[in-house]
Amino acid sequence: MAFVTAAITVSADGFVAGENQTAERPFGDGPAGELHRWMFETPEENRAEIDANLAADAYIMGRNMFGPVRGEWDLSWTGWWGDDPPYHKPVLVLTHHAREDLPMAGGTTFHFVTGGIHDAFDQARKITGDGRITIAGGASTVNQYLAAGLIDQLTLNVSPLTIGAGERLFDGVPPLRLEQTGSRAASLVTHITYRVLR
Amino acid sequence: MAFVTAAITVSADGFVAGENQTAERPFGDGPAGELHRWMFETPEENRAEIDANLAADAYIMGRNMFGPVRGEWDLSWTGWWGDDPPYHKPVLVLTHHAREDLPMAGGTTFHFVTGGIHDAFDQARKITGDGRITIAGGASTVNQYLAAGLIDQLTLNVSPLTIGAGERLFDGVPPLRLEQTGSRAASLVTHITYRVLR
Repeated sequence: MAFVTAAITVSADGFVAGENQTAERPFGDGPAGELHRWMFETPEENRAEIDANLAADAYIMGRNMFGPVRGEWDLSWTGWWGDDPPYHKPVLVLTHHAREDLPMAGGTTFHFVTGGIHDAFDQARKITGDGRITIAGGASTVNQYLAAGLIDQLTLNVSPLTIGAGERLFDGVPPLRLEQTGSRAASLVTHITYRVLR
Repeated sequence: MAFVTAAITVSADGFVAGENQTAERPFGDGPAGELHRWMFETPEENRAEIDANLAADAYIMGRNMFGPVRGEWDLSWTGWWGDDPPYHKPVLVLTHHAREDLPMAGGTTFHFVTGGIHDAFDQARKITGDGRITIAGGASTVNQYLAAGLIDQLTLNVSPLTIGAGERLFDGVPPLRLEQTGSRAASLVTHITYRVLR
């Protein structure tokens, strides 16, 4: 069985983004832009968690995490992630619009999956065998996989602010029994890792 | 200036209680009864945090935290806390129904305040001078003091479960800038302490 992980940064009140997300402001209005200070200002302190989230054999991400384009593809857009994306493995992008595979430098290939979360999951399992699948985000994708009972390990990177409105982790997810398997504080964040109990 | 603290146990999705709270089930329906496992099953591991929350010179609590009685007082009810409550100091109870002061064994005296949160705060400041005031709970009382900008330090005891519906910490509280001043993991909980920035 593949081992399925997700890690996501949340405010102390559980938001992953503020209201009114746009292509230019993917974290929306308000203080949500400060959610990821820990990653940008203190990466060395948090190297273990950053690396752990880039250690999978395949990734699944929502279309918004690939890029801000809506509707039909603009084929000149090859993602937020630059010419050499940090994944170096197959990345399955959930979308309603078919597109040819997009191989990038460094071993990352974006595969566009139109069949929904279970189709993407089956494809990822075929790629990884007993390896690791990481649900890379965003929150609505993580929430869908949590609700489907397909995530084994969830890491919350809890940032020191509250946002008050916007997109919430766990929205629409039935109650979960969790086992805290790790918890580590850095200066701008606390990383808490849970095993999702069945 | 008094130093004002609050500590509260929340689920990983930010709830302090489930739906349908009653006198018999103060944490409501669903898995919310497991929120405080860390306190009951592993108290020695968490002694520092438990003690820190009982180190104030005065306490403020909502009426629901004093007892389940609604409307006029039943004077035979002297609170959830037994004959020798753990506070050993003045405790200001927010209520709409006046009642004489209620001195208990061990130095705890319950004072019933009908003038609202600011009145209780002023009374607590008169008692404590430059000492410590702890907002003992419940969540709606903590939320009111957070919204009023009167809490200096907030500790979240994050328990390993999600609840999905019920009473949320931070409900109705405008966005807060926080500084993480402490974070410690125990086996069944992560304690995160924030300074509330002005």
